[in-house]
Amino acid sequence: MNTYGNLFRVTVWGESHGKALGAVIDGCPSNLELSEYDIQKELNRRRPGYSIFSTPRKEEDKIELLSGIFEGKTTGTPISAVVYNTNQKSKDYSALKDTPRPGHADLNYILKYGNYDYRGGGRTSGRTTIGHVIGGAIAKKLLTREKIIVFGHSVKIGKIKGDITYYDNLYKNLNNNNDNTKDTDSNNINNNNYIDKIINDLDNNPLRTLSNNYKDMEKYVLNAMDNNDSVGGVVELIVLNLPQGIGEPLFNKLNARISEALMSINAVKGVEIGRGFEVSELYGSENNDEYYYKSTENNENDNQINYKSNNCGGVIAGISTGTPIVVRVAIKPTPSIFKVQDTINLKTKTNAKLKIEGRHDPIIVPRVIPVLESMISIVLVDLLKEANKI
Amino acid sequence: MNTYGNLFRVTVWGESHGKALGAVIDGCPSNLELSEYDIQKELNRRRPGYSIFSTPRKEEDKIELLSGIFEGKTTGTPISAVVYNTNQKSKDYSALKDTPRPGHADLNYILKYGNYDYRGGGRTSGRTTIGHVIGGAIAKKLLTREKIIVFGHSVKIGKIKGDITYYDNLYKNLNNNNDNTKDTDSNNINNNNYIDKIINDLDNNPLRTLSNNYKDMEKYVLNAMDNNDSVGGVVELIVLNLPQGIGEPLFNKLNARISEALMSINAVKGVEIGRGFEVSELYGSENNDEYYYKSTENNENDNQINYKSNNCGGVIAGISTGTPIVVRVAIKPTPSIFKVQDTINLKTKTNAKLKIEGRHDPIIVPRVIPVLESMISIVLVDLLKEANKI
Amino acid sequence: MNTYGNLFRVTVWGESHGKALGAVIDGCPSNLELSEYDIQKELNRRRPGYSIFSTPRKEEDKIELLSGIFEGKTTGTPISAVVYNTNQKSKDYSALKDTPRPGHADLNYILKYGNYDYRGGGRTSGRTTIGHVIGGAIAKKLLTREKIIVFGHSVKIGKIKGDITYYDNLYKNLNNNNDNTKDTDSNNINNNNYIDKIINDLDNNPLRTLSNNYKDMEKYVLNAMDNNDSVGGVVELIVLNLPQGIGEPLFNKLNARISEALMSINAVKGVEIGRGFEVSELYGSENNDEYYYKSTENNENDNQINYKSNNCGGVIAGISTGTPIVVRVAIKPTPSIFKVQDTINLKTKTNAKLKIEGRHDPIIVPRVIPVLESMISIVLVDLLKEANKI
Amino acid sequence: MNTYGNLFRVTVWGESHGKALGAVIDGCPSNLELSEYDIQKELNRRRPGYSIFSTPRKEEDKIELLSGIFEGKTTGTPISAVVYNTNQKSKDYSALKDTPRPGHADLNYILKYGNYDYRGGGRTSGRTTIGHVIGGAIAKKLLTREKIIVFGHSVKIGKIKGDITYYDNLYKNLNNNNDNTKDTDSNNINNNNYIDKIINDLDNNPLRTLSNNYKDMEKYVLNAMDNNDSVGGVVELIVLNLPQGIGEPLFNKLNARISEALMSINAVKGVEIGRGFEVSELYGSENNDEYYYKSTENNENDNQINYKSNNCGGVIAGISTGTPIVVRVAIKPTPSIFKVQDTINLKTKTNAKLKIEGRHDPIIVPRVIPVLESMISIVLVDLLKEANKI
Repeated sequence: MNTYGNLFRVTVWGESHGKALGAVIDGCPSNLELSEYDIQKELNRRRPGYSIFSTPRKEEDKIELLSGIFEGKTTGTPISAVVYNTNQKSKDYSALKDTPRPGHADLNYILKYGNYDYRGGGRTSGRTTIGHVIGGAIAKKLLTREKIIVFGHSVKIGKIKGDITYYDNLYKNLNNNNDNTKDTDSNNINNNNYIDKIINDLDNNPLRTLSNNYKDMEKYVLNAMDNNDSVGGVVELIVLNLPQGIGEPLFNKLNARISEALMSINAVKGVEIGRGFEVSELYGSENNDEYYYKSTENNENDNQINYKSNNCGGVIAGISTGTPIVVRVAIKPTPSIFKVQDTINLKTKTNAKLKIEGRHDPIIVPRVIPVLESMISIVLVDLLKEANKI
Repeated sequence: MNTYGNLFRVTVWGESHGKALGAVIDGCPSNLELSEYDIQKELNRRRPGYSIFSTPRKEEDKIELLSGIFEGKTTGTPISAVVYNTNQKSKDYSALKDTPRPGHADLNYILKYGNYDYRGGGRTSGRTTIGHVIGGAIAKKLLTREKIIVFGHSVKIGKIKGDITYYDNLYKNLNNNNDNTKDTDSNNINNNNYIDKIINDLDNNPLRTLSNNYKDMEKYVLNAMDNNDSVGGVVELIVLNLPQGIGEPLFNKLNARISEALMSINAVKGVEIGRGFEVSELYGSENNDEYYYKSTENNENDNQINYKSNNCGGVIAGISTGTPIVVRVAIKPTPSIFKVQDTINLKTKTNAKLKIEGRHDPIIVPRVIPVLESMISIVLVDLLKEANKI
Repeated sequence: MNTYGNLFRVTVWGESHGKALGAVIDGCPSNLELSEYDIQKELNRRRPGYSIFSTPRKEEDKIELLSGIFEGKTTGTPISAVVYNTNQKSKDYSALKDTPRPGHADLNYILKYGNYDYRGGGRTSGRTTIGHVIGGAIAKKLLTREKIIVFGHSVKIGKIKGDITYYDNLYKNLNNNNDNTKDTDSNNINNNNYIDKIINDLDNNPLRTLSNNYKDMEKYVLNAMDNNDSVGGVVELIVLNLPQGIGEPLFNKLNARISEALMSINAVKGVEIGRGFEVSELYGSENNDEYYYKSTENNENDNQINYKSNNCGGVIAGISTGTPIVVRVAIKPTPSIFKVQDTINLKTKTNAKLKIEGRHDPIIVPRVIPVLESMISIVLVDLLKEANKI
Repeated sequence: MNTYGNLFRVTVWGESHGKALGAVIDGCPSNLELSEYDIQKELNRRRPGYSIFSTPRKEEDKIELLSGIFEGKTTGTPISAVVYNTNQKSKDYSALKDTPRPGHADLNYILKYGNYDYRGGGRTSGRTTIGHVIGGAIAKKLLTREKIIVFGHSVKIGKIKGDITYYDNLYKNLNNNNDNTKDTDSNNINNNNYIDKIINDLDNNPLRTLSNNYKDMEKYVLNAMDNNDSVGGVVELIVLNLPQGIGEPLFNKLNARISEALMSINAVKGVEIGRGFEVSELYGSENNDEYYYKSTENNENDNQINYKSNNCGGVIAGISTGTPIVVRVAIKPTPSIFKVQDTINLKTKTNAKLKIEGRHDPIIVPRVIPVLESMISIVLVDLLKEANKI
């Protein structure tokens, strides 16, 4: 229900216009240095108003840690974190009470629960992902300690497919284990400085992309905004330095758990791993990732197993291979648009028209990226614990 | 790990060349009529040798029920079912011991577990999906009792995209609840006879498709077989008559659970719901599914809520809407091919060549469909139980 | 870990001297009327300072509901509740850092977690049961709606065994289903007014007992207090009107779940159901609870099955019988005593003496009763949900 | 339901008079040497007919392993084991169909499930504990590898309290970690040879006790047998060498999990840890287990923490202390007795008499001991895995 994970568990709660939102994280190992700032900086990455493409709703989203930390370190007991809502406009939401918004969960909640806090979407609001990000920030801190890197970027905005060159080698012959430091290719994804720069650049890009055709993407979104419409996209998530052997067959597979976790975000309508849907067009001889040893010389790293390609996206049969994890998700256009839409009036039992007012993101792709990163980080920590690796 | 589900739980076990494979189903309600035949008929649908496109390995896959049934009905206690392996050729598999097959799980299992039953893939073999189908057959029986229909069909084989007209109305304005009987359109997906015919036709098609360009698909696969290669594809799964309100937010969503369940099958590399990845190209105004009442006249069905479209694929915010569930999965080409491949010899620590011998499917798409149907059926029963609807 | 329950889940968090303690309740059905007062009144029953036998530490334990309620009713989404600590004395706890208190969890936490918030016992403090009571108060509200009654009372204080007559008929021939209203015996446990009075009287008794030898009990505790010592006891829990059929074999049995839940409270060292340990002394012919129909006349209630006795305590083979649930738990004497005790100094690695200062209950039996009631209520709701009865 | 454990999971299935009974064990680490004999020898310890005090029903209870083992070692995949029923007498059980046996689960199952396999108790038969013992045998094998010892013995038979001297030091000042080898006291529970002898002697005693008054116990049972009656008792379970730190607060406590697991056996009506119910009579100063260092000399073992007593029974606040785990359970008299009992006829809706025929244990205490050992072993392995210690 509202708890995710087996050994690293994140319980999330709260509504868009309730008193507060928050999360309880259970199963975090003791002695991890953790401050409110560690979480705040991730919350800031999903905060409204972070670019021209996001809702101007002003929310400070200030985190407060209530338990589980002693003298700056985790104690192994549950970490409770809360974000108080400060800017719930007292405007009248009652219009939405009887005329559910198309594309939103209003109708589903009304029918399923009877009693629905419809103010700003209540529990179905994107604002509830604050809980995911709290859990994800702590998971990321644990992953960072293990030198595991997680980041996401936009690879498609509406109909504009990204023209992205900087991470070409994700599908090429590479491995992410051990020899990052030796790498002399400054453009290589195994080079830490290179990755740090990419992540930093992404955070500074309004659509979180480093695509060469960024300007086309920007124009596409601005055009939709002019039409009172909204835009979707595709996000790619990358995990580097995950050790081999993570994920449990048959029903706790790394890819199965990642899919479940990402599909837990309302806007996600598809998930693919590695070549994903493209795999249907490949022959077996094209798709199989062959193995090789790097050299026959007698040195320490001779025994390291390498993959000629990474079509599998870092997972075979639910277990990590040691190559980069590559996952893509389809993000739907924001359902809140400023056009008049057809709906029904549940009270009068008549057809109705609805024009949504207020503040809404014309595209949620860039803001959803920290949430996606959070969910995948939570899964990874959970499965690393299951494999006794954290 | 090897148990799936919360309230309807399927525990699967067995290896390709071990003594037997089987499953234990827990949480099946009492008083369901259940015979070995109910399971056997589903096992027959995934059995090797069912068409020219499947391995000629001869396995009867005969089911035996060992517990949980009394006087022809379930008792509410666990149902244990076993299929003994009868045709484990005693051939020498030891070549595979040290030279893992690319695209297969061999290397991952060797590294993770140390002790790996490599004969025919052992626990990683497609043969282990016998357990899924046992669980799925029981789940389907329960769904049938509730008039819920689940079926899958191939919509793409290799690069040949299906040209499928018979289910056009899946995304059009329709609802699947209640008024099937009244429907006068004999071509309508809400017409039971029409659906029965579709399902029957699919079972009689070697690629489980009703695409108009079936001949092109067939030629594509035969051509790959001539080249000692294998082919992938895309399967679409459809669920009709699922009631509104199934699925639990935030982390037990219908679509999240479906994705997890389907990704638990080794060959699946992508899952999408409704418009799926296509959604990234739609504007919000195109993607939102608007509501309407059918008439304003004062008759019994006036209050029924209808959707103008079904882009959401039957799920919004993780809860079923009452419209058809539409899911597509990407199936990778069979990793076992008869071409020479590059691999490594783990014993000698040298690069090696491998040519796989034996009996293998050139395409697993048609045989995986009953497995996919099984997994989605298991999820549906589990969530229907959670919603007190079964 | 810190979440209890499968379908009705209570996640608890917080430390004795942290900022706050609280709980998140997930799986509460929608449309239950719920106010802060419903929880506050249960918290008041476990509050320090409630009688001469409890710590004089002043804590208001004021509940605040942060989510899950809309217009006075539950919405089916998670209910988050918080109690801020207001009276964490800033006294120096550092003496306890290196000299663990015997009978307490200090040493276990130091060794297991490394980083231990030793202030007032931190996460191991009895104060953490605030979370249990929050969850229990909501569970009780649900049970009350179903007319199911839960209450506990002291049946032994130290060596003073209770002389209790008012509930003699608990083990006699009775059933708790259906016919409470008709009962003319004003002393009968099936009479609602009688039960209301008992519960009220118990809340007004400093040791929560209605034993005829209460004065002996009181003297026993006062005597221990004079000796700077502490006292244990035995509590009996009673559940009336639980329907037949609650509890799932083999591993989710009603009695197994109750035992687990009650043993989750630090002070509990034993749990027994019905005759409990006394059963070892009975012959089968004495212990078996025989069945009978009340009359052979042709009226509505003829078919009601009755038990001649209730030695089983309301549970056979893990499933409720419909007779009263009777459970007893052993409560250890408060480990905090004001006598000098032998311990060790972990820093200097030498033997040490410790005299505990501060405010502590000489007996926790009466204050633990609301916590025990809470845990059993949570279990009951969870299993009632599993049986589709709530 | 029928699966126990989080990381080491045992799924049990089967009925008394069905085709077979069995278990699937999931989460067993790879590379454990495991043969059918390892399980067979534990099954033999619970087999009917093992002494004069057990049913003469002849069952070979022959184990067959169907999966999860390769070349004599576990592979980390699920282990499926089956025991076929060979001696299901074809006698007419239909008398029991409508006249439920008092003290048995018949009535509860009939009312809860509607369809009940009443032959020999079906799923409620003691025979279903074959599954527990299969799981327990594998768990024990894992524990033995870690030098952790589990055994049970009868400490009370009917009204005859055991007079047991050989393990006096269980509650005295001792620790079980590390220094077994050095111990020169041949009577000490830390001496391995001594323990081996005790366990062997217990297996050769018809009541599995080493009590000095064994003859009185024997006479007590024989006397009950003469009266067509049955007898209960109390069993004590002891775990030696369990490391400190096992068990997870707040809701996955070692003692809570042990209680739940043992209460999952139908005959158990009470569980207590350490001093258990006796604790209610102790003052805090008597009950607290004080700490000390053994010497102040400067040798290797100086730092080892010792307990002056073990009243806690090896668990404080749900976490193991490193001292012996001591648990006692109350076992009810066998409900199957050969006296005439009052019951009802569910079909005719009239009161009825029932005289049970057939083969039944006059006391199940000795035969339940291997089952109790199995359940506690399963819990220990599960929690050791959770603590990354196996």
